[in-house]
Amino acid sequence: MKKIVAEILAIGDELLYGQTLDTNSHWISGELDKIGIKVIRRTTVGDIEEEILTAFAEAESRADIILITGGLGPTSDDLTKPCLCKYFNCGLAIHPVALAEITELFKSRGRELTELNRQQAALPTACEKVTNLLGTAPGMWFNKGDKVFVSMPGVPHEMKKMMADIVLPKLMQQYKTPVIHHHIVKTVGIGESFLADKIAAWEKVLPENIKLAYLPSLGEVKLRLTGVGASSDEVKRDIETWVEKLKPYTDNYIYGYGDDSLESVVGRQLREKKLTLSVAESCTGGYLSHLITSVPGSSDYFLGSMIPYAYEIKMRQLGVKPETLEKYGAVSEPTIIEMANIVRAKFNADIGVATSGIAGPGGATPEKPVGTVWIAYSDKHQTVTRKLQLSQDRMINIRMASIAVLNLIRLSLPQ
Amino acid sequence: MKKIVAEILAIGDELLYGQTLDTNSHWISGELDKIGIKVIRRTTVGDIEEEILTAFAEAESRADIILITGGLGPTSDDLTKPCLCKYFNCGLAIHPVALAEITELFKSRGRELTELNRQQAALPTACEKVTNLLGTAPGMWFNKGDKVFVSMPGVPHEMKKMMADIVLPKLMQQYKTPVIHHHIVKTVGIGESFLADKIAAWEKVLPENIKLAYLPSLGEVKLRLTGVGASSDEVKRDIETWVEKLKPYTDNYIYGYGDDSLESVVGRQLREKKLTLSVAESCTGGYLSHLITSVPGSSDYFLGSMIPYAYEIKMRQLGVKPETLEKYGAVSEPTIIEMANIVRAKFNADIGVATSGIAGPGGATPEKPVGTVWIAYSDKHQTVTRKLQLSQDRMINIRMASIAVLNLIRLSLPQ
Repeated sequence: MKKIVAEILAIGDELLYGQTLDTNSHWISGELDKIGIKVIRRTTVGDIEEEILTAFAEAESRADIILITGGLGPTSDDLTKPCLCKYFNCGLAIHPVALAEITELFKSRGRELTELNRQQAALPTACEKVTNLLGTAPGMWFNKGDKVFVSMPGVPHEMKKMMADIVLPKLMQQYKTPVIHHHIVKTVGIGESFLADKIAAWEKVLPENIKLAYLPSLGEVKLRLTGVGASSDEVKRDIETWVEKLKPYTDNYIYGYGDDSLESVVGRQLREKKLTLSVAESCTGGYLSHLITSVPGSSDYFLGSMIPYAYEIKMRQLGVKPETLEKYGAVSEPTIIEMANIVRAKFNADIGVATSGIAGPGGATPEKPVGTVWIAYSDKHQTVTRKLQLSQDRMINIRMASIAVLNLIRLSLPQ
Repeated sequence: MKKIVAEILAIGDELLYGQTLDTNSHWISGELDKIGIKVIRRTTVGDIEEEILTAFAEAESRADIILITGGLGPTSDDLTKPCLCKYFNCGLAIHPVALAEITELFKSRGRELTELNRQQAALPTACEKVTNLLGTAPGMWFNKGDKVFVSMPGVPHEMKKMMADIVLPKLMQQYKTPVIHHHIVKTVGIGESFLADKIAAWEKVLPENIKLAYLPSLGEVKLRLTGVGASSDEVKRDIETWVEKLKPYTDNYIYGYGDDSLESVVGRQLREKKLTLSVAESCTGGYLSHLITSVPGSSDYFLGSMIPYAYEIKMRQLGVKPETLEKYGAVSEPTIIEMANIVRAKFNADIGVATSGIAGPGGATPEKPVGTVWIAYSDKHQTVTRKLQLSQDRMINIRMASIAVLNLIRLSLPQ
């Protein structure tokens, strides 16, 4: 079976000038991927006739399906419709059903149709109209041999509805496509190259129909397995098998799958074990608590935090012993142990965690350079500490340290 | 003078599959626009050698400058470097300075270099290395006749730093571009359309060579003035004049200019006035403290926070009176006033601020729907409160409430 491939073309000066972020192409990519149509290229061009016509021809030379967004507004800087007429060598004519739909839309909004709006019902005679339920610019579907061009509005919610309701089902009907599934495996606490080394033997024997990609982000590496096959069940089973085979290679670096976030996984663990959490964070300055409370329903297990940013507050409010602070300093193992234990006791929580470090750029000493961070976990059975040596960048240090604490909770909770 | 044009090429299967949103191309578009370089096309291709090579050649045929992101990771699915070698007909060789930099980076993180990491220092012999201060994949600069190719990593913060520090200044030097200046005026506490109404008379008489753009983001509206002219001094003077003329129209909505953030402006005020700040945040869950402490040097004025997330903690740890909580509830004016006053007294701070609300999706009542938030500011002269009615979205509510508190501090500090 021939592989069906698509290209996405976004039209608009506002995209090229960096004023509007193109989320349409991203969304369309994901939707096509779900129905097994492979996007081979995405292109963005401005509101210039020659650029648009060239882009049409180039896309047609490579792809079976060309999906176009933008440039359908009523004003004269919008050129997609005249360009489609030229490209398909046809005229524009008022489409009676489109006109009726636009008139109806204006009526429902209590507004009168202007001549500019009426012109939005003028469509290239070579196309089939694609109804726009949420706006005044109809979509257009062109068949050319065994290829398809679809032009859609650039307003994201209009495009998405049109795509989901009409364009995707029609594409699925017109092209018989193979079944593709993606599965995301999420790891934390190990860098991309170290992970690649660890799983090399597994990666080497992956079958032809399963592809692997490494997707690194701050503190995490995602593994994406993409499987292709004859039936959905078969592909899913295949991927499951290979994820099971992966696990022995990854120690406990895998924290979740798909849409899981580290903070939601930790939240789920705490809820299941009916444990409560308290935080004493210094160098992370609230970001750790923010991650924890970004999960809806986190009040089920999160009791609260102290952020003893100033030295004085560490002593007087949190209650770290002055001797400890004087002897070892705020960024030290003895201090971090006290912080975690005290916040747990004070808040009457099952778990206490703490951070203290030099986020930078100021505050460093020769023994404690920027990026030095101590973290601790405490429950009634144990207190666990880690010393991290992070980066020169304040925000990276704040984020990496917070992720490291969440990971420490995940790995230290009582079984 | 010939108009200098650029193309942006993003490389990576994860972009075409719709799993990673390409924000790099958007950001680069905006930065090039600021220095007067016009982007004529953006292209995204997958990790396929033939596609990448074709895209190089096509871009070169149209543009003077080709900026490439992605595909520089250490693993075998990353093809940008081998493709650049083919395209520029050269080999790969370990770049001694790059190797030293990567070794240093690993050393500073207390980790050992693997062979895969070492290979990241292998660069096409035809390129100049572009230093990556935040990661292990160096950038590459190729001159080809009067055209330039620059390859940068796909990790956004690495690419942005490289672009801002090295690539943009070098492009500005190599290509003489017209004198363009941008000036950003930052407002908070007023919506885009209300602001547009307020400044309509000023906007109407702006001269030809100064353009205005509204850039709204969560809780803020930025005004970007773009001036074009013969000399840098002249353009800057022009813009200054028109910013001065703008001020009388904007009451106290303007909080800063350029790179100012609301949290850095508030920090500056506190430092200048030698005042200290403490926070009691409930519904914002740490995000307000995070904004405050994201400013380097915030320990000069920020003493710390309490995050009394659980009802019990509001009473026992912070010390809100049980009668107040029982009679009015946690989300109420009497409670928020106590929270701000107590945290100020406890932390012995000059200023105390507090948040309490229903971030959602749970926790709403008929009288207190999702998005209801109380905030308060307290100093020795006054206590100021505000009731906000925000959105249905948890993260938006957390962010908007935090911004509202920062703005309340800005407007309430003693003169």
